[in-house]
Amino acid sequence: MCPHANGDSTPNDPSQMVPVDLTNGTGTHSSSVAANGANGHSNGVNGHTNGANKSQEQRRNPYAPRASDFLSNISNFKIIESTLREGEQFANAFFDTKTKIAIAKALDAFGVEYIELTSPAASEQSRADCEAICKLGLKTKILTHIRCHMDDARIAVETGVDGVDVVIGTSSFLREFSHGKDMAYITKTAIEVIEYVKSKGIEVRFSSEDSFRSDLVDLLSIYQTVDKIGVNRVGIADTVGCANPRQVYDLVRTLRGVVKCDIEIHLHNDTGMAIANAYTALEAGATHIDTSVLGIGERVGITPLGGLVACLYAADPEYVKSKYNLSMLREIENLVAEAVEVNVPFSNPITGYCAFTHKAGIHAKAILNNPSTYEILKPEDFGLTRYVSIGHRLTGWNAVKSRVEQLGLKLTDDEIKDATAKIKELADVRTQSMDDVDSLLRVYHSGIQSGELAVGQKEALDRLLRKHKERSIANANGRDSSSSRPASPVGA
Amino acid sequence: MCPHANGDSTPNDPSQMVPVDLTNGTGTHSSSVAANGANGHSNGVNGHTNGANKSQEQRRNPYAPRASDFLSNISNFKIIESTLREGEQFANAFFDTKTKIAIAKALDAFGVEYIELTSPAASEQSRADCEAICKLGLKTKILTHIRCHMDDARIAVETGVDGVDVVIGTSSFLREFSHGKDMAYITKTAIEVIEYVKSKGIEVRFSSEDSFRSDLVDLLSIYQTVDKIGVNRVGIADTVGCANPRQVYDLVRTLRGVVKCDIEIHLHNDTGMAIANAYTALEAGATHIDTSVLGIGERVGITPLGGLVACLYAADPEYVKSKYNLSMLREIENLVAEAVEVNVPFSNPITGYCAFTHKAGIHAKAILNNPSTYEILKPEDFGLTRYVSIGHRLTGWNAVKSRVEQLGLKLTDDEIKDATAKIKELADVRTQSMDDVDSLLRVYHSGIQSGELAVGQKEALDRLLRKHKERSIANANGRDSSSSRPASPVGA
Repeated sequence: MCPHANGDSTPNDPSQMVPVDLTNGTGTHSSSVAANGANGHSNGVNGHTNGANKSQEQRRNPYAPRASDFLSNISNFKIIESTLREGEQFANAFFDTKTKIAIAKALDAFGVEYIELTSPAASEQSRADCEAICKLGLKTKILTHIRCHMDDARIAVETGVDGVDVVIGTSSFLREFSHGKDMAYITKTAIEVIEYVKSKGIEVRFSSEDSFRSDLVDLLSIYQTVDKIGVNRVGIADTVGCANPRQVYDLVRTLRGVVKCDIEIHLHNDTGMAIANAYTALEAGATHIDTSVLGIGERVGITPLGGLVACLYAADPEYVKSKYNLSMLREIENLVAEAVEVNVPFSNPITGYCAFTHKAGIHAKAILNNPSTYEILKPEDFGLTRYVSIGHRLTGWNAVKSRVEQLGLKLTDDEIKDATAKIKELADVRTQSMDDVDSLLRVYHSGIQSGELAVGQKEALDRLLRKHKERSIANANGRDSSSSRPASPVGA
Repeated sequence: MCPHANGDSTPNDPSQMVPVDLTNGTGTHSSSVAANGANGHSNGVNGHTNGANKSQEQRRNPYAPRASDFLSNISNFKIIESTLREGEQFANAFFDTKTKIAIAKALDAFGVEYIELTSPAASEQSRADCEAICKLGLKTKILTHIRCHMDDARIAVETGVDGVDVVIGTSSFLREFSHGKDMAYITKTAIEVIEYVKSKGIEVRFSSEDSFRSDLVDLLSIYQTVDKIGVNRVGIADTVGCANPRQVYDLVRTLRGVVKCDIEIHLHNDTGMAIANAYTALEAGATHIDTSVLGIGERVGITPLGGLVACLYAADPEYVKSKYNLSMLREIENLVAEAVEVNVPFSNPITGYCAFTHKAGIHAKAILNNPSTYEILKPEDFGLTRYVSIGHRLTGWNAVKSRVEQLGLKLTDDEIKDATAKIKELADVRTQSMDDVDSLLRVYHSGIQSGELAVGQKEALDRLLRKHKERSIANANGRDSSSSRPASPVGA
């Protein structure tokens, strides 16, 4: 019923697929590409250029923002990586000291600008771990995230962090059902805490919680107040994951007109919009985005690091490549996935296991001509590989032709189309592995060479395939056999 | 190292969590809630109202769009479910006839307005399956998706479908590297195919491919032409997943001013923005959204059905509930996940296994007072349950109090805070299961009752817990034992 139902192929097994290597100049794929007048991705400034018939022209990155916008920070942002704070609020997360340090070091090597840690007020071990990570001497700045309370602030500044992220709920919902404080009290406490942290010579951020359900005037008023007393950043938080992109744009843009300090945004992903909301926040002038690896956090979590990198890379690949060690992304995701015992989602941007697999015939054809046709991310920039899947009923003869050339076989286009029809017929019964496809192409090729086969001779092809199958079985059994057998993978 | 590292708890095991039932009026949780002056979600028109102190007032849904917009179709849209077309292009997908029929029936029962099937021109079996699904007599309309070509159109109309979705690549990329046709040829063929399908009395849609990299004037010109000859819908496709929400809004809004017919949008998810892009397209006036179950499709796929439902439910729960059988969502996702051998992502909106699990102390407290504080989706509307996780170092005494009440124990707030401190201390070493927490609370309670324990007596509590542990081990072994043992789950 399913391609892998017999357990003979794991999801990561590319046995049905053609790996497409565009980086080395050898091999028949490259010649196929050259014949079509394109060289795939080159190393042009904007990430995608195409050669041959336009070799002297640097084509503009077609995914870059089209109009310039003085507010936009799409190419000027910082990541606050919160796997060790928000991520610890994921139901499965329990990070011991060793794991926390491994994650912190990996994120530092990847190049995030900030790492945010659980409040040292949360537990004795949380405090000790915070101190231990501050002593690692990482390039990334270390923050810790506390409630807007002097007790927490005092504990935080003593851990050696580079900055403190202060948060308090400002929505009527949270004021009524959570802490029960009014705006006057919130403002007074915020000023006290911020001035205290500043007096210790480290960064301080003030964030509201549930910002999108807070009264706009209350919100702007407190942000303006803390901006005037010199807070480094104000934070907007979509704590419940209710915001949509245009709301995010409006709120950030409005806030951008009210404060001079940096603007951070923290976005939950309950409706799956956290990546797009982060992108839109940057367009509106936000400067710092909160992420966690794989998005882990409360409920379904927040903006995932990998997803954010994907959309920003699409907009400005050179900027993102210059900031981050992209080929580490998969390793970091695997580290965290293992620590919290989840699988990397099959549909994850960049590292989802089919993110660079092309299947439908028309897609495969164009990808082979020029990867930019159906790809906005260059897999090689992430240390990954592109595949074109051909052993299925949606396959097309251009993808099969590429494989024929890789195998070093000589077939005309008509012959390849004829062989493709047979692959589609067999794949209608069950998905064909790469081995199955290769065998069929070799049998087809030798039939043509020997004169036993011509285009359109379906019965002759079936006979040759049957003979090949019997020979294979005999070889496998170490003896000659002509008895009838159940249908083989390539079988007629 | 990890909470489940010993394999004694599966990810779906809620053993560390408190199930929170807000629908029945019995149990201590409800009394806890009532004491705080809120009744959680009630059945008000806008999905969220709160009772007790505001029982007569229907609070407006705080997630609904704030300003009315004559273009917006957030509460007036149709879903074109393409699991059996786009989903078949997912690398793992091989649907046999039986599976296709099971998926079609499930989607029909869920209530999607359209189901889109693979082109009958793709293979013989694809044609036969298309005919079989048309004969099922489903309420949902059946579409098939073809290349803009008369041969394909003739085969399609003979299958018995309710409509044909026609597509052709219009971007310079696809025109150069895929089909090689110019706009004049595309327009001529489109007119021929559309008039032919219309002459058969069934629906026809014309879509460009890679619309966001197509020349805007070319695009609007061909859409206007096909609109004038009476096409039912025009389609925009972000074939490579490069679009961002504000681009989507701009293109759909511009198109809305150019054509009278319906507007469909098909969005790939390479950068994780497909849900938000779909939402924004509806805001701009799109009428039909393409989805697939779990988003399966080429590469990382398209807008997922569940994610789209999540963000639209958040905006207008009553409308979404009136259209779709939401409690079937998990069943449909499991059906498709099994068919293509993937796991439902842990971070999936609605059905991700922690989507309704609350962990941090301040979250848990507020959730217990009023679920609207940290939830925009009512789990019961999807046949699911809310959990509050308490056996970890981020726990808070309000969540523990709720559990104390559920267990029927009588402790003062100070006693509960004292017991919470012990839970946090133990959870700093390893995550505590619900059983561990319950045992600790019972031991604490009986210590208080017997006078052996008072608030702050840490050593007395450790002694009682040690005694309890030894008794448990003795009971388990069927004999008395006072020998030293490794630290027990509740152990001192």
